[in-house]
Amino acid sequence: MTATGRPGRDGPERAAPGTAAADPAVARIVGAGGPHVPRMLARVEERLAAVATSYGPVLGEHALATISAGGKRLRPLLVLLAAGPDAPDEPVARAAAAVELVHAASLVHDDVLDGASLRRGRPTVVAAAGRDMATATGDLLFSRAFGELVENGSADQIRALSRASASLSEGELVQRADAWDASVPVERYLHRCELKTARLFEAACELGALAAGRDDAAPVLGAFGRRIGLAFQLLDDVLDVSGPAERIGKHRGTDLLDGTVTLPFILARERDPGLAALDPRSITTPEQAERVCDAIAATGALDEARARALAIVADAKAELPDVPQRRALELVADGVVDRYS
Amino acid sequence: MTATGRPGRDGPERAAPGTAAADPAVARIVGAGGPHVPRMLARVEERLAAVATSYGPVLGEHALATISAGGKRLRPLLVLLAAGPDAPDEPVARAAAAVELVHAASLVHDDVLDGASLRRGRPTVVAAAGRDMATATGDLLFSRAFGELVENGSADQIRALSRASASLSEGELVQRADAWDASVPVERYLHRCELKTARLFEAACELGALAAGRDDAAPVLGAFGRRIGLAFQLLDDVLDVSGPAERIGKHRGTDLLDGTVTLPFILARERDPGLAALDPRSITTPEQAERVCDAIAATGALDEARARALAIVADAKAELPDVPQRRALELVADGVVDRYS
Repeated sequence: MTATGRPGRDGPERAAPGTAAADPAVARIVGAGGPHVPRMLARVEERLAAVATSYGPVLGEHALATISAGGKRLRPLLVLLAAGPDAPDEPVARAAAAVELVHAASLVHDDVLDGASLRRGRPTVVAAAGRDMATATGDLLFSRAFGELVENGSADQIRALSRASASLSEGELVQRADAWDASVPVERYLHRCELKTARLFEAACELGALAAGRDDAAPVLGAFGRRIGLAFQLLDDVLDVSGPAERIGKHRGTDLLDGTVTLPFILARERDPGLAALDPRSITTPEQAERVCDAIAATGALDEARARALAIVADAKAELPDVPQRRALELVADGVVDRYS
Repeated sequence: MTATGRPGRDGPERAAPGTAAADPAVARIVGAGGPHVPRMLARVEERLAAVATSYGPVLGEHALATISAGGKRLRPLLVLLAAGPDAPDEPVARAAAAVELVHAASLVHDDVLDGASLRRGRPTVVAAAGRDMATATGDLLFSRAFGELVENGSADQIRALSRASASLSEGELVQRADAWDASVPVERYLHRCELKTARLFEAACELGALAAGRDDAAPVLGAFGRRIGLAFQLLDDVLDVSGPAERIGKHRGTDLLDGTVTLPFILARERDPGLAALDPRSITTPEQAERVCDAIAATGALDEARARALAIVADAKAELPDVPQRRALELVADGVVDRYS
């Protein structure tokens, strides 16, 4: 376990602290999305801060710390972009805030489970306030996500968020159930990635379309989000094996030490009998993990996993409808890839 | 900490295992509510089981164990009764299931925080499957509560559940923030009880009215639920001090050992300088806790706390509107009192 949180759910955001505005790739996306995007992102930040501070100084402290720690706000950005330039401000900002609240809640609970001390360079809620406060803070953020979204008055929107939120938890359950099991099939791995990452990206795009009153576009934009989310997770899992350590801000192979069996290891086991015979539980030190990472890389499994992710991104871009925000969404897709190339 | 879970949130249900049907007081309530009540309760059980088993055998196991462990189903019963005899079945059953799912989720997370091994005589999720699975199971139940309720297509209903769910978490935060602080004022204690217990009772009654299409009755029935919930918590806190141990299934004074400062202790400190000078942290053994319980009882603080709860119940009954289900709701109010007399 690393100090910056467990791998798998939220890798890239851990590796590269910063806010949406500070990241050049995100700045390009904002540029392509149109002048409303920076304004809307600021409005989302206001809403998030309002939620976090609505519980008084003591209680809001942890929620606020979590939310204001930032991250790239990739999911809210997807909401805004999917909504397009002509959408009404308030419903879209609420949907974007709600998606980020669900994401933040899941991170807080992840950190509790991992006993993680830092996230994005700041103390986690569990480190600052203990397990009890952190569990309750996560629950509060979950509940507030729905409280925020309900103001849009749309059952379809609540349904989309609820599905994604349940999927996050289900993905976590699957990951824990499959921990240390090297024989996990590729399909089950992909299903886990769908649950724990892709579904919230999908919901972000669906919610953008729905909040913009463009219900017809919700399925196709949702499919785009799901693919991008899946590629995001695949590439994150590749990065955990490929490193380098300086780039990812942690030693390589944290997934292996964590018992999380990911695509590179699954593919490498088919190619290297030594890896096929390896019991993940026998990997107990960072040095051992690095050696296994080298063995995985030597099989070409990283290239294959990366190629799969790129193919998914290409599909995502190819299937995008001809909407005004198409260019910005393509840049998001490229950004997911660039982060790892 | 007792094996049956921490006191405060859910005392009576811990102390007396069983289902709604098995409890004579509940049976009377069901009788007064009308012939639709048992049928509707069965339907709620079906929905809960469907939710729990919709994630496959491995994943559903823990959710199902939590839900099928039963309890009195007091909150779903309030939903059904508030809805009245002429309400449509499906929306009311969904609302009742959603309320119980939020309650179950909060219990699962409580048990994680407490490391509790048993609840209602069965192993807790955290004991059976570990902290990770239990946290994710709780999150899943939370999300599914909203997923269930959203099918009613009512933003008002989602809003009511979201508010109550956020209050539960906020109440937990307040309780942890105030732990070991003997100088907590009565008002703050009552506010904590509102948050962690009364608001979900309130939501149960509101949701019943809303799901029945009786929006006009939601505020007054909600106020009834809130009062009953507050009295429920006050009496539960009295019981933790009064015992006897055989009745409550645990030694007396678990709240004291837990650092949870409740009304009997607050009132007793005003009357007994020895108690006023006592640092809760100095109470470290069940024997010490029992002695402090005796000292609290000797001040008459238990009678005063009980009297406050009875006055709240009387107010709740007096303010009930003249609806067909009035008698059944009065019996619920009486049941809350009888449980402790």
